[in-house]
Amino acid sequence: MDAKVLDARVHDAPHPFDVATRVECADGRWQGATSDDYHAFVGQFGGATTATLLRALMQHPERAGDPLALTVNFCAPVGNGAFDLAPRLIKATRSTQHWSIDLTQPEVGVAAFAAAVFAQRRETWSHQPTEMPQTPRYEDSPVYGRAGVAASWIRQFEFRFAENAPNFTGTPHVEPASAHTKVWIGHAVPRVIDLLSLSAIADAFFARIFHVRGELLPIGTVSMTTYFHVDAADLAAEPITAVLGVADANVFHKSFSDQTGELWSAGGRLLATTHQITYFKA
Amino acid sequence: MDAKVLDARVHDAPHPFDVATRVECADGRWQGATSDDYHAFVGQFGGATTATLLRALMQHPERAGDPLALTVNFCAPVGNGAFDLAPRLIKATRSTQHWSIDLTQPEVGVAAFAAAVFAQRRETWSHQPTEMPQTPRYEDSPVYGRAGVAASWIRQFEFRFAENAPNFTGTPHVEPASAHTKVWIGHAVPRVIDLLSLSAIADAFFARIFHVRGELLPIGTVSMTTYFHVDAADLAAEPITAVLGVADANVFHKSFSDQTGELWSAGGRLLATTHQITYFKA
Repeated sequence: MDAKVLDARVHDAPHPFDVATRVECADGRWQGATSDDYHAFVGQFGGATTATLLRALMQHPERAGDPLALTVNFCAPVGNGAFDLAPRLIKATRSTQHWSIDLTQPEVGVAAFAAAVFAQRRETWSHQPTEMPQTPRYEDSPVYGRAGVAASWIRQFEFRFAENAPNFTGTPHVEPASAHTKVWIGHAVPRVIDLLSLSAIADAFFARIFHVRGELLPIGTVSMTTYFHVDAADLAAEPITAVLGVADANVFHKSFSDQTGELWSAGGRLLATTHQITYFKA
Repeated sequence: MDAKVLDARVHDAPHPFDVATRVECADGRWQGATSDDYHAFVGQFGGATTATLLRALMQHPERAGDPLALTVNFCAPVGNGAFDLAPRLIKATRSTQHWSIDLTQPEVGVAAFAAAVFAQRRETWSHQPTEMPQTPRYEDSPVYGRAGVAASWIRQFEFRFAENAPNFTGTPHVEPASAHTKVWIGHAVPRVIDLLSLSAIADAFFARIFHVRGELLPIGTVSMTTYFHVDAADLAAEPITAVLGVADANVFHKSFSDQTGELWSAGGRLLATTHQITYFKA
């Protein structure tokens, strides 16, 4: 067996992210399954769930256009194993489609559901009033050690903190620390960033309360919305394997906090913005 | 008839906002209707639609807790007249509920649908890392003239711009102007701000592109998400009739732009954050 064949084999091996978010449709029934690579503390990593829901919609034969807005509501932990998906085209107009999709498991009922808008985007006047924040380059940012982490999903991404890397080995902060972080995020096994990657990375920020309190506390994303500011053609024109993630929080009150996030290309393009509301116990 | 009786009559007259967002359930069928007071250029003002959907969920006998997250997807203009509402309790846990609700009209099909999370919020550690921006007080901000505006919904709110009041009477801007505005917003007929008010005011910012381009262009909200950072008890403890709305945009690209918004109490409390993606033609 020559090197070329070996190369082809390596190249052809499906990426762990694509394995984890695989969906199949047979006889009108849509199904997927969790992957051991993307476990979180309780249930599947929300970003993997999100990308799976989005992939099912993108694979749907009636789908037209690229994802524009995606809201995922996390109702219950997604347990190990298979799940059913129920995509529904709610409304189609000339250039947009509104979809919903439920993820159900026998023991759980509905574990997650999403609402998505797909759009055929047209060239128009363009303007990006916001600027990419000043930040150390990807190449100059140290790789964050993930060897000891309990949740497998964290090892599926490479994090390079450009500002405010968390330290969970010391004592918790006495006074609240900053919730603001900048971190380069890519797949641990390199993979070009596509819209599915963006949908997952939107949930790959560490919980803001971990940074603010300097400790790990019970948390869970309740609802997350991501807006895509590029379409597949825009991303393909400028292939990248990592994005700069900028995240912050505004408020922690009565067991819920918010999180705002931006995903930037190294070239200074705002690819996506994302927001979530998160349960916490503190 | 003495003055006291007249006063009582005035007081008892339902507020236009409550009339516009009224919903009724008879024999398991939920219905509402548009109000002439809340027309937008095409169809009903999105904030009125939003508040109507939220009101239906809040009136549902199975509802528990206060709204925490609300995503509304606008599929088609809501035409004049009656509509049907289909609330669905997707999942309930010990302290949260996930709901969806569709709004349909015979000629349109699904014109809007929403996903909502309700939560029974519990006292916890509280922290608001973000601070209310420096801004002129409500009392010191001039009332924005709305007499000439074509869309009736604008006359249902009182706007007092604290920064960057728009001027649509001059020539459009040659260079893009700032998308950032600060504006006090209350109901034109004074009404204490409740969670329904917040859900409507979240869509009451003028489209960012109007500010940036200095002209009115065809636009439409496609999807809007609002996170409530206070519950009904928090709001009742500090009654207010106006909020400071801070809005901005990050990007305009290929016929869609985003909008970020914050709703503040005069006392410096972040009541809600809101985000939307908007179609534009330019």
